[in-house]
Amino acid sequence: MEVTRTLARFLVQHRYGAIPEKVRHEAARSFLNWIGCAVGACRHETVERALAALDEFSGPRVATVLGRGEKVDVMLAALINGTSSHTFDFDDTHLKTVIHPSGPVASAILALAEKKPVRGEDFVHAFILGVEAECRIGNAVYPSHYDVGWHITATAGVFGAAAAAGRLLGLNEQQMVWALGIAATQSSGLREMFGTMVKPMHPGNAARNGMLAAFLAQKNFTSAEQGIEGRRGFANVLAAERNLAAITEKLGETWEISLNTYKPFACGIVEHPAIDGCIQVRNEHGLKADDIESISLRVHPLVLELTGKKTPQVGLEGKFSVYHSCAVAILFGAAGEAQYSDAVVRDARITSLRDKVTATVHPGMREDQAHVSIKMKNGRALEKFVEHAVGSLDRPMSDADLEAKFRGLCEGILSRTETDRLIRLCWDVGGLKDVGEVARASVPVAAVKRAKAS
Amino acid sequence: MEVTRTLARFLVQHRYGAIPEKVRHEAARSFLNWIGCAVGACRHETVERALAALDEFSGPRVATVLGRGEKVDVMLAALINGTSSHTFDFDDTHLKTVIHPSGPVASAILALAEKKPVRGEDFVHAFILGVEAECRIGNAVYPSHYDVGWHITATAGVFGAAAAAGRLLGLNEQQMVWALGIAATQSSGLREMFGTMVKPMHPGNAARNGMLAAFLAQKNFTSAEQGIEGRRGFANVLAAERNLAAITEKLGETWEISLNTYKPFACGIVEHPAIDGCIQVRNEHGLKADDIESISLRVHPLVLELTGKKTPQVGLEGKFSVYHSCAVAILFGAAGEAQYSDAVVRDARITSLRDKVTATVHPGMREDQAHVSIKMKNGRALEKFVEHAVGSLDRPMSDADLEAKFRGLCEGILSRTETDRLIRLCWDVGGLKDVGEVARASVPVAAVKRAKAS
Repeated sequence: MEVTRTLARFLVQHRYGAIPEKVRHEAARSFLNWIGCAVGACRHETVERALAALDEFSGPRVATVLGRGEKVDVMLAALINGTSSHTFDFDDTHLKTVIHPSGPVASAILALAEKKPVRGEDFVHAFILGVEAECRIGNAVYPSHYDVGWHITATAGVFGAAAAAGRLLGLNEQQMVWALGIAATQSSGLREMFGTMVKPMHPGNAARNGMLAAFLAQKNFTSAEQGIEGRRGFANVLAAERNLAAITEKLGETWEISLNTYKPFACGIVEHPAIDGCIQVRNEHGLKADDIESISLRVHPLVLELTGKKTPQVGLEGKFSVYHSCAVAILFGAAGEAQYSDAVVRDARITSLRDKVTATVHPGMREDQAHVSIKMKNGRALEKFVEHAVGSLDRPMSDADLEAKFRGLCEGILSRTETDRLIRLCWDVGGLKDVGEVARASVPVAAVKRAKAS
Repeated sequence: MEVTRTLARFLVQHRYGAIPEKVRHEAARSFLNWIGCAVGACRHETVERALAALDEFSGPRVATVLGRGEKVDVMLAALINGTSSHTFDFDDTHLKTVIHPSGPVASAILALAEKKPVRGEDFVHAFILGVEAECRIGNAVYPSHYDVGWHITATAGVFGAAAAAGRLLGLNEQQMVWALGIAATQSSGLREMFGTMVKPMHPGNAARNGMLAAFLAQKNFTSAEQGIEGRRGFANVLAAERNLAAITEKLGETWEISLNTYKPFACGIVEHPAIDGCIQVRNEHGLKADDIESISLRVHPLVLELTGKKTPQVGLEGKFSVYHSCAVAILFGAAGEAQYSDAVVRDARITSLRDKVTATVHPGMREDQAHVSIKMKNGRALEKFVEHAVGSLDRPMSDADLEAKFRGLCEGILSRTETDRLIRLCWDVGGLKDVGEVARASVPVAAVKRAKAS
């Protein structure tokens, strides 16, 4: 089966007109959500340290670090913006593969759009194609690839970045084959890193390395013809089981970005059903933490595998603790970024509530389901079964929900007016003359002034 | 077992005085050989295209592209020099793992030595420690890791680069743990790429990414505590079988660089026994191609797996054809870079001789053994069994052999005087006040003048 070449041909030949309006709108939703996440985390310690380490190596400073005043070279911008967009673990999710699709792709091409102006149509087209390549390659190797320990956002993301950047650079079919091969040989990223700063860097690295692949291929730097399907290629080496047909069948007929979802809560998607259930019970019954005897969760096995930290010590660890997440859900009725600060994780009200939470794995549970059972001190028992978590494909966030989330993320960084303008630009991205404008509009006037003065 | 931390502690605490003189000399031999390979290939199309693609993104231009006039930023220099040093497939080999140890490590720290002067002792020490980390990690996962399709020079090399760069940057133990973790999560490189331009880029990428890991860790950018041995860490995810004890046992008592070897022939090490045998028969019997009826090789299984191309079309493919390699050995009595040009691969004398070569796998054969059997048109049969190929640990190249190889590589790039000076600097590397001098001395005066004029 010719996989790499078939995909490459599709990526270079596809026409924008063939993409349904609904799919284009989903791209705008993904883009808006991605920009919000990147701006929201732009002053996080993870981003600060990455910039402190790498800024001095920057080449021509043409690309914007989202939400900040600095300019860096396009590859470093891809790295940093990809990192900030995943720092809060609040970005989008392709539930079939748990890929966070926008980070690797958008980080690469938005940086590219500041090197040379890119029209909105071309940008949205490249974005959708990049997500398509990334998620289809993910579909082909999920779940065996993920189960063994690969962070699929990183490993599949590098293909998405190469595909999207390659499309914008106007690669021909052979060059796109090479770009996908150069991406394949850089595919990396381990789940062992979850809960540390380098985890959010994975999509950034994927973006940077995918761009590198596209730039090299543009100069006819060669790679394998079958980087994806070859005997020693990506799929055979990085996955025990694979379905290569998933990469090529119905190309151009279905769109993976249509399956994208957005998180209402600032933590791993697997915790969302339980959080959703806790918030629902809380709101329906006006729960007070002091009245609660115990909270029992029944959850999908992945929940404890990924987010089973019993006693998180810092905010970042709190995101990997379903116990903490349910405690904040009960106490605050929310699980936004504010609920994952170091201070909240150490708050005595939270730690005592957290200790009342137990969770058991239920093999019959789907990933977007959870059962919450709360025993009150007065003997009363409250139950809630979540059939589809909010933010899932069956209960998607509305455009207004996404805007509200965006506003929350930009609070304290952009003024109300700046946020409004940025939201408008994101919705209108397909019609912009120069998409780089979005990157520049993500920076508050105050930061621009500071940067100019320094 | 605490692997990552034990290794990190060793890397930051080890003292240079504890390294035997013989081991230090082996480091100089490795360094000399590596510089020669990088200079020799510095004008190769692979390097030209990589520079054409990436030069425009360079940051502060403080580091030398070996053999050329350009300066680029330290990360790009690591990438490019790592690439050129592996372009001819003529670099060193740690036979236990088929790792080419110097590329990832030396490319990173020589670039670093031009950012801030580094003393020879510190350089040689970091180099030896980097090779130690890289090869021990390779030992732990070889052969299952290589067999499935990983290019181990790339996947293990990134650890070596991180370790060596981290040592020069003065990381503390915790930072070194993080640097190794950030290296782990970037570990990549597929054997599918063999025979294309991106294969020689693997050590370059490993060098660049390992440096990135060290720079990030220096700013306390965190990663996993058990990047190597953790459940979702490097060894478990990238190898079906592993022996983690190989990383930590006898640390500081044995030195992997002592097991380094250098190629007399400009192609994959697995072909060397057969080439050696052909040259020996040729020289002993004054063979002429026209008198030969057929040539039969009995070889180790890897020979056909890696270099079984029957009809190579271009020079690069010739390196992956034991048939071509034996044809040039018979016709020219040599298998240097000159014997792997496009012209030689297409030369009718070679293609007709190549077609007379057959090879069969012999399970009992060791990797450094081969049996050559030549049937002459006059009915005579000539045989040669190679017990240890030249360049193997049992028949190592002498210092003089290495110098001769170096001179061959620098021909046409450096003048005789420039070559002499560069050789002297390499032998004396441990005593230099500023090792960056070696990088600058690799550039011919003519190129420096050209660069200054432009």
